[in-house]
Amino acid sequence: MRGLLSIMQAHEEIIMKKSGLENIAPALDKYTAGPLADLWKRPDLPLRDRCLVTLAALIAKDQRIGLPSYLVMALENGVTPGEISGMITHLAFYVGWTNALSAIVVTRDVFLRRGVSPDQIPAASPPLLHLDEAAENKRAKSLHQQFGQIAPAMTHYTASVIFRDLWRRPDLSPRDRGLITISALIANGQTAQLPFYLEKARRDGLSDTEAAESVTHLAFYVGWPNALAALSILKQTLKTP
Amino acid sequence: MRGLLSIMQAHEEIIMKKSGLENIAPALDKYTAGPLADLWKRPDLPLRDRCLVTLAALIAKDQRIGLPSYLVMALENGVTPGEISGMITHLAFYVGWTNALSAIVVTRDVFLRRGVSPDQIPAASPPLLHLDEAAENKRAKSLHQQFGQIAPAMTHYTASVIFRDLWRRPDLSPRDRGLITISALIANGQTAQLPFYLEKARRDGLSDTEAAESVTHLAFYVGWPNALAALSILKQTLKTP
Amino acid sequence: MRGLLSIMQAHEEIIMKKSGLENIAPALDKYTAGPLADLWKRPDLPLRDRCLVTLAALIAKDQRIGLPSYLVMALENGVTPGEISGMITHLAFYVGWTNALSAIVVTRDVFLRRGVSPDQIPAASPPLLHLDEAAENKRAKSLHQQFGQIAPAMTHYTASVIFRDLWRRPDLSPRDRGLITISALIANGQTAQLPFYLEKARRDGLSDTEAAESVTHLAFYVGWPNALAALSILKQTLKTP
Repeated sequence: MRGLLSIMQAHEEIIMKKSGLENIAPALDKYTAGPLADLWKRPDLPLRDRCLVTLAALIAKDQRIGLPSYLVMALENGVTPGEISGMITHLAFYVGWTNALSAIVVTRDVFLRRGVSPDQIPAASPPLLHLDEAAENKRAKSLHQQFGQIAPAMTHYTASVIFRDLWRRPDLSPRDRGLITISALIANGQTAQLPFYLEKARRDGLSDTEAAESVTHLAFYVGWPNALAALSILKQTLKTP
Repeated sequence: MRGLLSIMQAHEEIIMKKSGLENIAPALDKYTAGPLADLWKRPDLPLRDRCLVTLAALIAKDQRIGLPSYLVMALENGVTPGEISGMITHLAFYVGWTNALSAIVVTRDVFLRRGVSPDQIPAASPPLLHLDEAAENKRAKSLHQQFGQIAPAMTHYTASVIFRDLWRRPDLSPRDRGLITISALIANGQTAQLPFYLEKARRDGLSDTEAAESVTHLAFYVGWPNALAALSILKQTLKTP
Repeated sequence: MRGLLSIMQAHEEIIMKKSGLENIAPALDKYTAGPLADLWKRPDLPLRDRCLVTLAALIAKDQRIGLPSYLVMALENGVTPGEISGMITHLAFYVGWTNALSAIVVTRDVFLRRGVSPDQIPAASPPLLHLDEAAENKRAKSLHQQFGQIAPAMTHYTASVIFRDLWRRPDLSPRDRGLITISALIANGQTAQLPFYLEKARRDGLSDTEAAESVTHLAFYVGWPNALAALSILKQTLKTP
């Protein structure tokens, strides 16, 4: 299997050899080769999705040290350059513009090294995906009632830029946008908006098993405390708890 | 207008050319030239204040990648070197000493390049601004009641170093201290202390419109989730919601 | 006293000379030589513990800029290379794998420069410390009731890897694991799990005074807002408030 070989090579490169992990912290090396490597092979979340989740977490935390290797791992396991481009653009709005910029700088180098060509990069203004007007109007109305009076610009940008444009871009499926948004929220410990995005992701095709397994995966990349906080929210949003 | 030209040049330098943004993520390039550039021109918050807010967010998040360009933008739009020095000192107490140190290292280079002279840097111990004894005693009493017994050193430092010294330094106006404190709290998702600092900033001359527009500005730099969480708090603190 | 001399030298090196602090922000320089230097001398928390607390905060925040100097300070004040190795391994689970990796890269250089030898590094799989089966079963049962159904892998890893293995490793005492876990939670503003870990640390020998003083120490390194949020939780968990 190309996928698992690539994971092992990436771990080898990222974590073990370069960093001197086996000399400085043999126990962490053991946990990397044991539970962490096992995690990546668990069937409850496809390998490609684990790459998306990990990249979203690293971009959310602005951690550039592992980013090149995980970008390579993503490209070798079914994530396209266009999806990576779309992901960074998407996350700019959820974790801040300068995190996206940091990611762009690293990604440019990886794309150059791998010979990604310009036609693999999504256009600035492609035809947009269908909009569920009813759901969007409901969302807009709710935000308007909350903040329409004190911050009309926020409600305006949220509708016109985020939900009527960004989320409809075809470079990333709505389900994948949900997955990376949830991952970014968990990485930054932002539980307040998780229910909204969990529900939206479910409507867009993310299963409860995939959501729970994403949290389990994130436990290793953003720490147990953020993962446990997310599980509490996830449990509350489940129809059959 | 020098200001807007400088913004465009800074964006050009920071975000577009250097990073390869237009090649890697044309959509993010489009959003940068569109909504983000528009944001900087909105009249509800002066350009100078937008610079303060952005710098505070970057220092709070310890993001050094954009810091040089935004420091230059600040200096070209009415923020003095002394205010930048005062800001970093102030934020040391609100986001941690090592974030301030990171910012100092970057700022030193920018100041050197621009020939900032020693007389533009605020003295270590200047005459302090007037203290509102009544307000400070009220604050001190409240903190003492909460934590005087379990952490007397905290209540001591909070009074003697932060409110009786730092906030009274003349290198930054109390209103600007409020603005950057609020920005740092929002950048780090720390909503618990927002009501206190929003109320204080209001007394020190920050309008509700400026506060709300600061949150809108921050949405782009620290992500929508932190901005929306801040708006909830802001709304609760408004007298006329 | 070797300890205090070393602190002053480290501060000198880290903060004052290298960064140009005295030229860019004389006030911050003053606060560093005043309240911050005083803090390190306060008797309520041993110097060695202050090193652990500071390192945990820097690793939690992924701040590599001060890390080398604080690692040296730790090594010169009673923290062993094995404890540092154990600490990074421990924190991987609490703040994320890539933070630990960042720390490893920096630590490797420090260990090399100081001639740390391989026999000072803890083995991957040493004999483990005694397990309090009753307490662990109670913890496992509680987590299983919460999340056993929606995320069985999380409850599995939490028991088998974290509480039945990691916490029992002899390279760091349970009391010190508690201290660094609490510090990491405070550094990242994660208050939800503080009560559990404060109670556990208390059982493992951390006094309430040491806990409160750790929070006071952290105020300077992770900012006042996170420290005040932690004090609220600490106060609630005290038996005699």
